[in-house]
Amino acid sequence: MGGFLMARHRGLPAYVPGEHDEGGSFIRLNTNESPYPPSPGVALAVAGEIDQLGYYNDPDCTRLRAALAALYGVEPGNVAVGNGSDELLYWAFLAFADEAHPIALPDITYGYYELFAAVHGIPMHRLPLRADFTVDVDGYCGLGEMIVLANPNAPTGYAVSVEAIERIVRSNPGNVVLIDEAYIDFGAQTCLPLIAKYDNLLVVRTYSKSRSMAGARIGYCFGSPSLIAQLETVRNAVNLYSVSRMAQAAGAAAVREDAYYMENCRRIMASRRMTTDALREMGFEVLESLGNFIFARLPGMKGRAIVQALRERNILVRRWDAPRIEDYLRITIGTREEMLALIDALKDIIKENRP
Amino acid sequence: MGGFLMARHRGLPAYVPGEHDEGGSFIRLNTNESPYPPSPGVALAVAGEIDQLGYYNDPDCTRLRAALAALYGVEPGNVAVGNGSDELLYWAFLAFADEAHPIALPDITYGYYELFAAVHGIPMHRLPLRADFTVDVDGYCGLGEMIVLANPNAPTGYAVSVEAIERIVRSNPGNVVLIDEAYIDFGAQTCLPLIAKYDNLLVVRTYSKSRSMAGARIGYCFGSPSLIAQLETVRNAVNLYSVSRMAQAAGAAAVREDAYYMENCRRIMASRRMTTDALREMGFEVLESLGNFIFARLPGMKGRAIVQALRERNILVRRWDAPRIEDYLRITIGTREEMLALIDALKDIIKENRP
Repeated sequence: MGGFLMARHRGLPAYVPGEHDEGGSFIRLNTNESPYPPSPGVALAVAGEIDQLGYYNDPDCTRLRAALAALYGVEPGNVAVGNGSDELLYWAFLAFADEAHPIALPDITYGYYELFAAVHGIPMHRLPLRADFTVDVDGYCGLGEMIVLANPNAPTGYAVSVEAIERIVRSNPGNVVLIDEAYIDFGAQTCLPLIAKYDNLLVVRTYSKSRSMAGARIGYCFGSPSLIAQLETVRNAVNLYSVSRMAQAAGAAAVREDAYYMENCRRIMASRRMTTDALREMGFEVLESLGNFIFARLPGMKGRAIVQALRERNILVRRWDAPRIEDYLRITIGTREEMLALIDALKDIIKENRP
Repeated sequence: MGGFLMARHRGLPAYVPGEHDEGGSFIRLNTNESPYPPSPGVALAVAGEIDQLGYYNDPDCTRLRAALAALYGVEPGNVAVGNGSDELLYWAFLAFADEAHPIALPDITYGYYELFAAVHGIPMHRLPLRADFTVDVDGYCGLGEMIVLANPNAPTGYAVSVEAIERIVRSNPGNVVLIDEAYIDFGAQTCLPLIAKYDNLLVVRTYSKSRSMAGARIGYCFGSPSLIAQLETVRNAVNLYSVSRMAQAAGAAAVREDAYYMENCRRIMASRRMTTDALREMGFEVLESLGNFIFARLPGMKGRAIVQALRERNILVRRWDAPRIEDYLRITIGTREEMLALIDALKDIIKENRP
């Protein structure tokens, strides 16, 4: 094993995704998916591509980029799309950092950043979140390194203000500041308008959360035309055709039906409020999340034990064996019914474990 | 421009794809696509995924890998899949070569290899094809470098024998030999059985040619379980979810309907015969191709002029401004009707240019 792999890849960590439950026998609150299906236009748009599948997809993603630009009030030259936001993140790491140019990011954040850095030997400058899990914004100001911040952050659900992001972007004019807005549609404020003022800001988005299409792999990002062109230089060399005909069509259709998704976000935010309040009432400490998930612990009970007890009740949630957060659960906000089932299960578990 | 891009990426060449004709007003014989639509099961399989699109795709591509393994008589552990064979090729370059470990390949071959190497600073050891465009197999034996051969090669359409590949693989036991079988279904012999004997052979395939799904982005590859596991190490770090639900479902459906695609391949081979003979009769030199394309020149007439004259007659073909091949056209084999239209157009062009 490992005989042909270049030496520098041999110690690569593996990304450990949330358990994949293809059969669907569990209530899946472990991977921050949307519980709602895509809007009706998506099925039609995808079906309309099938007889053209023999022909290559548009490498420029012209229609999808135009649709996104129109929805968000920018120009197509401000937009790039990828096969999931993971691919855009990967391209950005490869384009704007290397062995000699580290990336600064929080110690607790989206797990894939570490992999993108590791595969290219990019040093990671981990800035610890404060004890209360908030981002120490001052630590990123004037740093002179590429910066990657998920906003809101995962798994905490905490967001920093647009003003704070502007301070970071303005004080690092020689480096790219990447703001991963995967969860922006669940109540936080976007920093998108700042791309008109700063050529070093890259704002990355995904269809996997608010747009109910984790399985379709569509990501997009915004930046100055110059920054987007630089990202495209790497995209061209890595995978110019990465966004399939089906993904491009699905993505454009969803933009036309944006109101449907925004209404789903409101429902998820209402369920998040309900779940947060119910868990607090049971004795949980629950961070006030702006994502489609909550991050919570029950003082006096091990996180591992709760995850296991929920699993026995057919509910999947997420937990990490990592310092500071090992007793926290990250619970995706599903439908109201799913959250009521979760609340009942947790009540049951607490009752069973009462001394 | 270029302000944030790492210095080593600034000179990256751009991949120049064949002209993309989304509108469909041209006869497209320029990108080696299939003129036939996907089989009926593909539309159904994709439609069946839409209401599940909110949930992540299976990162292990379990069903698709099992389907491919069953069709080709190997085990799922011998198979990896990617978002187009381009993605698999990219992973392989990243996994098995680097700045200090060059890749040996022909001087005339698929253009994207150069990009995958350039983005990672991998030196390319270009071994010239012989004057007649055949591969000098001896040049690759005992080389001690990673080797990449398209077989059949593009744009020549020439294949080397399985025996020749075995000599190369056996004589380079310390390096990966990657055989790109994108065009294998059009008459050449696959080297797939060799993976049972050699742990350094990676055989890469695509759905973009014989399976009529260039726009769906599905690639697959075969190797020893150990070699596949090494490739997966890099895949895990780059994009674990790269093959969407729609692509996985479409891919598995096509395997169930393999006979449809094999029949299309027979039709394409018959049209290739007809076109080759007709062009030779007109005075073209036509290489005897085993791909879904032919490579041809007309002595006494510039390739550029023929391409332009065909374009004026609404037919797109491919040509490169490169040494040795600048007067050759690469003509994709479309439907019989499309090839008859091409033949008529070429007769017309020859008549117009007669002195």
